[in-house]
Amino acid sequence: MAYQIPRGTADVFQEKSYSWQALEERLRQFCYLYNYDEIRTPIFEHTNVFKRENDSSDMVNKEMYTFTLPNSSTSLTLRPEGTAGTVRSFVENKMYANPDLPVKLYYMGPMFRHERPQKGRMRIFNQFGIECLGNKSPYTDVESIVLAFSILKSLGLKDIKVCLNTLGDDASRNAYREALKDYFKPYLEDLCSDCKRRYQQNPLRILDCKVDHDKEYMKHAPSMKDYLNEESKKYFDTVCQLLETLDIPYEVDDRLVRGLDYYSHTVFEIVSVNSSMGAQSTVLAGGRYDNLISYFGGPEGMSGIGWALGMERILLALEAEGIVLEEKPGLDAYVMCLDSQAQTYAFEILTQLRANGFRADMDYLQRGFKGQFKAVARSKAKFAILIGSNEMDSQEVSIKNIETQVQTTISRNEIIDFLDKEFD
Amino acid sequence: MAYQIPRGTADVFQEKSYSWQALEERLRQFCYLYNYDEIRTPIFEHTNVFKRENDSSDMVNKEMYTFTLPNSSTSLTLRPEGTAGTVRSFVENKMYANPDLPVKLYYMGPMFRHERPQKGRMRIFNQFGIECLGNKSPYTDVESIVLAFSILKSLGLKDIKVCLNTLGDDASRNAYREALKDYFKPYLEDLCSDCKRRYQQNPLRILDCKVDHDKEYMKHAPSMKDYLNEESKKYFDTVCQLLETLDIPYEVDDRLVRGLDYYSHTVFEIVSVNSSMGAQSTVLAGGRYDNLISYFGGPEGMSGIGWALGMERILLALEAEGIVLEEKPGLDAYVMCLDSQAQTYAFEILTQLRANGFRADMDYLQRGFKGQFKAVARSKAKFAILIGSNEMDSQEVSIKNIETQVQTTISRNEIIDFLDKEFD
Repeated sequence: MAYQIPRGTADVFQEKSYSWQALEERLRQFCYLYNYDEIRTPIFEHTNVFKRENDSSDMVNKEMYTFTLPNSSTSLTLRPEGTAGTVRSFVENKMYANPDLPVKLYYMGPMFRHERPQKGRMRIFNQFGIECLGNKSPYTDVESIVLAFSILKSLGLKDIKVCLNTLGDDASRNAYREALKDYFKPYLEDLCSDCKRRYQQNPLRILDCKVDHDKEYMKHAPSMKDYLNEESKKYFDTVCQLLETLDIPYEVDDRLVRGLDYYSHTVFEIVSVNSSMGAQSTVLAGGRYDNLISYFGGPEGMSGIGWALGMERILLALEAEGIVLEEKPGLDAYVMCLDSQAQTYAFEILTQLRANGFRADMDYLQRGFKGQFKAVARSKAKFAILIGSNEMDSQEVSIKNIETQVQTTISRNEIIDFLDKEFD
Repeated sequence: MAYQIPRGTADVFQEKSYSWQALEERLRQFCYLYNYDEIRTPIFEHTNVFKRENDSSDMVNKEMYTFTLPNSSTSLTLRPEGTAGTVRSFVENKMYANPDLPVKLYYMGPMFRHERPQKGRMRIFNQFGIECLGNKSPYTDVESIVLAFSILKSLGLKDIKVCLNTLGDDASRNAYREALKDYFKPYLEDLCSDCKRRYQQNPLRILDCKVDHDKEYMKHAPSMKDYLNEESKKYFDTVCQLLETLDIPYEVDDRLVRGLDYYSHTVFEIVSVNSSMGAQSTVLAGGRYDNLISYFGGPEGMSGIGWALGMERILLALEAEGIVLEEKPGLDAYVMCLDSQAQTYAFEILTQLRANGFRADMDYLQRGFKGQFKAVARSKAKFAILIGSNEMDSQEVSIKNIETQVQTTISRNEIIDFLDKEFD
């Protein structure tokens, strides 16, 4: 009987796990500098946390892992993204009462979407994201974009740019929605079935359609910027000015609407252009949400902004650029046991090395000298510690520097001092 | 409408997230020393990975999150533990062909059991575990126990002890199973309904029953040690001798069988005794498995050993001992903006600080001096950087050392040098 990993999921192990850890460590380090704290929300939530009334996004309508256990009436959903759970927690734990708003949170971990698996698009994938909650200021919009941009730069992605748009406040967006409905009405029959639904639920998302994208009348659809009221325009202008002041390269793209319904004002994506392939891909996206906190039962009018990046995609983008974040580190010492009588002695030495902070391992297969020496090379050990019955009888070890090939015999009690000096 | 976290799950945020990160970091550090690499397997697997033929454990029979998506025939289960997925991956990725066996892996992350929530027993909980795969040597049994013991000691748990038993090889265990069946036959009607099932599937687990535990005839049940063949006895003796050589305190408990069916030879638990409460709890458990790798389609006769600890339980045990692994670190600098005209200037300074590796934040609420100064205190900042329109006009900042209360005014260009010296 064969046991296989589920479709659209992946194991990460050995060499690859070091890249993951290095990426996570880098992300944490940036959050430390920017004063973002980690939040960990459950892998599943009540389904209504994600499935909001009249939501038009594919993610909510087609791609969720929703289930009900036998003998239970509770519908649960594996989280498809990180914002909803974070905002649910922000409200449920009354973090909005914090004297120092915004509350700045980051999350990292697996998300779940039941879609057709493709390269860089898995059913279980990992997102890192931030949410800056409880404050509406163009400075926090820009802070979050600067954080995003700095992270991607620091990872080594070369050609990246910020694509920016505004969806305005509720009034502006409602005016725009009506304008889009009027505009698309004559083409309604020609739109794809998803867009017919979007026309009713959220006509903005028609602009984002992969199917209808190239149709002639799409090009002449009304533009958001003509429906922004003064306040919305001013807010967006300030965001743009601050980005210029800080020398963050950006482009305004007035067709950018993002795939989630809850955005208002600033929305953005960061696009990476692979230098060798020329291919372009969105590695990070986010935006402001004026109504999500109150939707979850928090204070009216409290706003937030956030973004997320796909960790698998970032690692693929780095791979395409030939960037390795971290390789498996070599051992400090490999203990070679050359006589089965001395195995316990060798094991004691090994245990002592580890207890003193050295990364060490030994041969458990009782291989011959040649076999063990190959293992030393594969382990990239800096020292081989050779132990046979002679060494055991005299309570010594022979220790060989692999780089210089110099071998010395020292007393058992001197090993730690010897290595401390070598690694100083 | 209220949105609540699902029953038996928890949010981790702000202060608490630092303890979690510190625990994970400590665990990773030990794995680094012991040459264990990380493995990350999917959050869900095909149900048959966990639900093995004739398995008697409660976990598999009662507590799994098993679901099938609409329009799919694939039964999926949220992982209830880490070993099965790891062994599935070890086999599927042919890690058994590695020239350096054992392959040593660790995992860390959420597990799922649908049971009645209690303190320290959540429906979504986190496990850290190791698996040492593809080698059968009492040295690897002891290596894994030493690693477990060293981790718990290093975390600061004071009264811990290893409880140890052997379930022997297949032949010994079969003989013991028959003896138990004979012994319990007259009491079969008196056993609880779970034990009636266990009698058929795996009578060893009757010894572990919480319901029947105190019954008189339980005390006189046959003991495993009387059914061990020579080889199994010898293997266990070597494990015990090595633990003595390394001064690891242990007790042999011949009723210890563990809640999973796949164990053979060495099984163990580490028990923590809370010094103030006197209460005792199992914080870590594991054992050897001779048949699990071949069950998943790997080479016949290839053995493994592993253990897992509950991370929530460890954090509770540390809390009971008054041990805080890590607190939220203070800021290096808090930028106080005392004039709304100077906000962009203040924001530029803030961005510059972060770009130079300082942990910094500012006021986005445009509070008055007093309000901002309280925020500085709450942020535990080492320096307050005061910016008003005077500072902006002269391209300077006033910088105050919170501990010494010394305040200086310096040019904008000198800030990084100034702080570099202060933090040297």
